[in-house]
Amino acid sequence: MGLPTSDRLRVRQSRARQRFDTLSVDALVVTCAANVRYLSNHTGSSGVLVLTRESVHLLVDFRYREAVRMLQQSPSACPGLAVRDVPASYDEALLQCLGDIGASTVGFEAAHVPVATHEWWRRTVEARRLDVAFRPTERAIEEARLIKDASEVATLRDAAARLTSVAASVFETTRAGASERAVAAVIESAIRHAGYERLAFETIVASGPHGALPHHLAGDRILAEGDLVVLDFGGVLDGYCCDLTRTVSIGPPSSEARRLYTAVYDAQQAAIAAIRPGVESTAVDAAARGALEARGLGAAFGHGTGHGLGLDIHEEPRITRPRPDVPSVPLLPGMVFTIEPGAYVPGFGGVRIEDDVLVTETGCEVLTGVPRELLVL
Amino acid sequence: MGLPTSDRLRVRQSRARQRFDTLSVDALVVTCAANVRYLSNHTGSSGVLVLTRESVHLLVDFRYREAVRMLQQSPSACPGLAVRDVPASYDEALLQCLGDIGASTVGFEAAHVPVATHEWWRRTVEARRLDVAFRPTERAIEEARLIKDASEVATLRDAAARLTSVAASVFETTRAGASERAVAAVIESAIRHAGYERLAFETIVASGPHGALPHHLAGDRILAEGDLVVLDFGGVLDGYCCDLTRTVSIGPPSSEARRLYTAVYDAQQAAIAAIRPGVESTAVDAAARGALEARGLGAAFGHGTGHGLGLDIHEEPRITRPRPDVPSVPLLPGMVFTIEPGAYVPGFGGVRIEDDVLVTETGCEVLTGVPRELLVL
Repeated sequence: MGLPTSDRLRVRQSRARQRFDTLSVDALVVTCAANVRYLSNHTGSSGVLVLTRESVHLLVDFRYREAVRMLQQSPSACPGLAVRDVPASYDEALLQCLGDIGASTVGFEAAHVPVATHEWWRRTVEARRLDVAFRPTERAIEEARLIKDASEVATLRDAAARLTSVAASVFETTRAGASERAVAAVIESAIRHAGYERLAFETIVASGPHGALPHHLAGDRILAEGDLVVLDFGGVLDGYCCDLTRTVSIGPPSSEARRLYTAVYDAQQAAIAAIRPGVESTAVDAAARGALEARGLGAAFGHGTGHGLGLDIHEEPRITRPRPDVPSVPLLPGMVFTIEPGAYVPGFGGVRIEDDVLVTETGCEVLTGVPRELLVL
Repeated sequence: MGLPTSDRLRVRQSRARQRFDTLSVDALVVTCAANVRYLSNHTGSSGVLVLTRESVHLLVDFRYREAVRMLQQSPSACPGLAVRDVPASYDEALLQCLGDIGASTVGFEAAHVPVATHEWWRRTVEARRLDVAFRPTERAIEEARLIKDASEVATLRDAAARLTSVAASVFETTRAGASERAVAAVIESAIRHAGYERLAFETIVASGPHGALPHHLAGDRILAEGDLVVLDFGGVLDGYCCDLTRTVSIGPPSSEARRLYTAVYDAQQAAIAAIRPGVESTAVDAAARGALEARGLGAAFGHGTGHGLGLDIHEEPRITRPRPDVPSVPLLPGMVFTIEPGAYVPGFGGVRIEDDVLVTETGCEVLTGVPRELLVL
């Protein structure tokens, strides 16, 4: 799969430029690493992109100079890229670049730029009497990233499919007597062997009562007969994240464990069945939440139903209850997100089942292929 | 080791409160996750802390509710903590909290709060006619974190010492014919087995010409006779990061490889020898840089000499050239940072040697115990 081709980047840049009029800017400063990568294929953790109507500039320091040179000789080269060296401060180099290209109204990513950085830009521009006005923008690139293009879908599909072999390794070795950490080590080694470049997030192995902590990581606890164990893991393939949760039973599950599992299973099925273009993201959440509420487990499900997947492990769309700070969006083909309802009972444990889905023209495609039935190990 | 005790947190909170007068605030909103943890022992990835002269409030959502309850029943409980539930938006919950406690001049972390968040706070406070003024602060907590306390030093020492067994596993298995990814998998599995809770950063295995890319990760390239291989890895133990780089030779090194290695080795020795209280951070960088410049390798060493280690993998102090945006600091006992000069030759490869040091009353203690001589595998 590898990085998107130059042609693909050209389309992305052109789409970003089409927003300049609406945003009332003649250049856009991109500082969010995932957005820089999306537009340029630069994969470094530092780097600032300046996009104008005619040009694209990448500011990088010594550590990435050679990597960018190699990128530019590949079929995934960023079209029209002017590379600028950052000898010391990225902010100094940015103002220099903006001065050189003569941009006067410059959009920046208000959700990513810290107040202190913006203040320094503002004060320095004023002190040096530069003709640059900074204008906050939001979602200038994120809005495009919300709908995955063909190259992204192919990578996400591959990333999700590889979780099957990871899950198989884990199921084979997860037994009473193993520590949570040992299980996490097996997961992480399997993620490497499946060809992912890194973990998508910190692996969760939450056994027995720890399962009631939705974000418990992996500790010293030893798995015991009768435990439910929540296993939540994912890898990054060519920059794209996948994310899977399965809950397994160590030895035969109690009737309470079975009851919880069935409720979460049904909630997940209901949410997946609700997905199709035009449906509101909040309606998908409501499908899962309603199923749990019907079993008296509404309060046991305190988080959202899912989150978008892409270059970031948590991105848009958010599949949540109606919230003033998270606008509900109508689903569209090309959106990729998780569906991960759960139920958490303090002192007892928890269940979460999570898959990754792609919205299609008629419904959705579940990208993760690991069986969802309760596995007794 | 585990988390710091309640007494330790009391000291940290009291030190933060002592800065309120200088900052002209009567409350401080802490949003940076490492700073929240430093003051409260809350280890979740979400959570906002509000510190006033008399009280401390932690805002957390459902995912962390049970974990905080368990923390508060442990010997590492956060003293005087009032826990507030965040039903949906952290920003809404924050304004509610500030209203309830009657704070009027509220400091926030300008280096961490995005412009968009600050704008929402400002507009909402205005629209609701709340008596709250937000005041930017910088380094309110970072300044204290710069000098490690006894509990932090003990954890950092333990974290660095455990790298010895990780390095041994890697040296045992790194051979011609292995892929960079396979070597990374060995490193990451050894990090888990050494008891770290996670990787401190993405593992770097840069073989042959890839060694010229300071931040190359680990790819498909197969290690070959005559390669220099840069291995850069670290783990997190009880929240604290360690970081080690060794460069090894696959088979006998060429004379150019030996020359590069010796130069970087000497540069590192020179920097370590320069460390003692009162010396400027820029002087330590100059010691390493001078040694490389003397061999004509000044341009081959394009990054800084080191970075602070603690709850973050990159924190203060920065050991760099004099830069307008990175103030030089006089070293003080209790500072912990890396010393990692390198030399990178495009097309040929690179060398980097990195250790972690603690500034003592008289000089420094090297915390990492892996031999530094060129290892031929």
